[in-house]
Amino acid sequence: MSKYWTDLVHQLDPYTPGEQPQDQQYIKLNTNENPYPPAPSVLRAIDDFDKTRLRLYPDPESTELRAALANRHGVNPANVFLGNGSDEVLAHSFQAFFKQDKPLLFPEISYSFYPVYCGLYQIDFKALPLADDFSIDIDAFKMDHGGIIFPNPNAPTGLLMPLQQVEAVCRHSDSVVIVDEAYIDFGGESAVALTQRYDNLLVIQTFSKSRSLAGIRLGYAIGHSDLIDALNRVKNSFNSYPIDALAQTAALASIADDEAFRSGCAKIIHTRDALTRQLSALDFRVLPSSANFVFAEHATRAAEEIYLALKKKGVLVRFFKQPRIDNFLRITVGDDAEISQLITRLKTIL
Amino acid sequence: MSKYWTDLVHQLDPYTPGEQPQDQQYIKLNTNENPYPPAPSVLRAIDDFDKTRLRLYPDPESTELRAALANRHGVNPANVFLGNGSDEVLAHSFQAFFKQDKPLLFPEISYSFYPVYCGLYQIDFKALPLADDFSIDIDAFKMDHGGIIFPNPNAPTGLLMPLQQVEAVCRHSDSVVIVDEAYIDFGGESAVALTQRYDNLLVIQTFSKSRSLAGIRLGYAIGHSDLIDALNRVKNSFNSYPIDALAQTAALASIADDEAFRSGCAKIIHTRDALTRQLSALDFRVLPSSANFVFAEHATRAAEEIYLALKKKGVLVRFFKQPRIDNFLRITVGDDAEISQLITRLKTIL
Repeated sequence: MSKYWTDLVHQLDPYTPGEQPQDQQYIKLNTNENPYPPAPSVLRAIDDFDKTRLRLYPDPESTELRAALANRHGVNPANVFLGNGSDEVLAHSFQAFFKQDKPLLFPEISYSFYPVYCGLYQIDFKALPLADDFSIDIDAFKMDHGGIIFPNPNAPTGLLMPLQQVEAVCRHSDSVVIVDEAYIDFGGESAVALTQRYDNLLVIQTFSKSRSLAGIRLGYAIGHSDLIDALNRVKNSFNSYPIDALAQTAALASIADDEAFRSGCAKIIHTRDALTRQLSALDFRVLPSSANFVFAEHATRAAEEIYLALKKKGVLVRFFKQPRIDNFLRITVGDDAEISQLITRLKTIL
Repeated sequence: MSKYWTDLVHQLDPYTPGEQPQDQQYIKLNTNENPYPPAPSVLRAIDDFDKTRLRLYPDPESTELRAALANRHGVNPANVFLGNGSDEVLAHSFQAFFKQDKPLLFPEISYSFYPVYCGLYQIDFKALPLADDFSIDIDAFKMDHGGIIFPNPNAPTGLLMPLQQVEAVCRHSDSVVIVDEAYIDFGGESAVALTQRYDNLLVIQTFSKSRSLAGIRLGYAIGHSDLIDALNRVKNSFNSYPIDALAQTAALASIADDEAFRSGCAKIIHTRDALTRQLSALDFRVLPSSANFVFAEHATRAAEEIYLALKKKGVLVRFFKQPRIDNFLRITVGDDAEISQLITRLKTIL
């Protein structure tokens, strides 16, 4: 608190990322990081980059990278916007599209940064209850609104919305619809192709999860060039050069190596399925996940109790003290060794 | 233009960075980049960084780097805030401090991003005329205001405000005063020490100029912990992880190598003084610069004409088509070879 703060700062309720305690070495299954390093071709590209060029500003337009992403997704470079992680892309999007007379709609159980952005930009919103099976109820989006956003697959449930439902949401809305596809590469079908038919659809993806590059901070949006123009206007009123030169280099190499990308995703999916079976055998109910994490509830033991017991045993998972999901744990799909250790420790606890 | 844009997006007037034409190889003296590569110790630190760790999110608090900066500047880590370039630090600062009932004050001839931020956050401002000698008139800051910001040295003039004048501004203001020290290492005395005595003073610096690291995107603010708290509240409502892992590594190495930093700055100052003499000999009036650029006006030839002629000859300098300074050129201090080529071509043109 300080007399120098603007009113806005006093009102803010900032986002809390997953804990990163430093008191011991943990098996970190709480922030949905990829357990595998970036592809060797990506590491090589960073090594080969001429670092004396770091004296120069990076290309503010990320021209080459936008072209590569456009090529990969079958769109034009004018349909691609890049940001410092998909969080920055989301922040600019909220400011560019969602401050409207009518409320923004998103699922009540969803990415907990959405209400934080609404606080930052003073956006009115309604958080809509999920259906009984934890799926997103798309009929609820038919109420009067100034925008719609949801993750697909949803987080922290991991549930995927089928593409024809995504399309129905776009068709029935006269506002911008953002599909936040941070986890789409782990088994979902992207809505990017729909951006060619729906000028109100913006799809956001990230290099942090499926491309093992959380450390370089890169996310992007794909949509109609009018939507991309809006994002560029906001970005160029905020920070001209958010994507550093090494991040652009690493991202380009990652897109070029599709084989490594696909096999990396396949490994996660394989481990996720094994993890789901093992948790079920331990009396967990596991929601069907299309992400790199599972969301699971034990038949008899409280989630908070298991979370604390696991932490004591050196395994971090994510627990949300929030109505409706406070008996669930979100567990990131680690590598096979990590998952085997998780299961061993769970057996001791239960 | 699109019906999907918020009113704000329609009103924005984004910042225009210095041109980066790709049609030929230019001698780039237009964006105040450092002509020398980062120190060998910095390049080595990037090479030595374990790139497999890029699968992980970077430390959102940049704990180690903030401690190193605090140590360097004789403050506590709680007095240090980091951002993706000083532009991001400035953006968050405008939102955190400057939306007040009374107008923000800054010099009319100054960093042209300031009015852009005001547009983004709907901040009322007054741009105050410089004195006849192009210095900042600190008496003008005595009018009613909700905040004050100025670069020191100022850009694009290069003129330094003496520290006792900076202190007088802080003492006479009951609002936040931001001193934007992007160029302070090229001959000025930093106001950082004053932050211990004035809880309304925030000093912003960058790794882009004196540390030859424009490519990694890193800037920081130093001030009272209440001001830093406000910035953290905004940042954590916008993007939790703006500073990537490689940037943190490079910055740490740069701070550790003070010898390289000092000798790098000394080289620029030496070349700047030579450039000033040579331009004067060619009938330019050169304002006394404490930055890594000079601001110069020719006795008889129009600045725009010289700018265009230089561009045709493969040398980019910055020309601002703006009242009061539209007969000046801002010329970045390159290395000795670049400056010698600039002078040769100027001789042909004049």
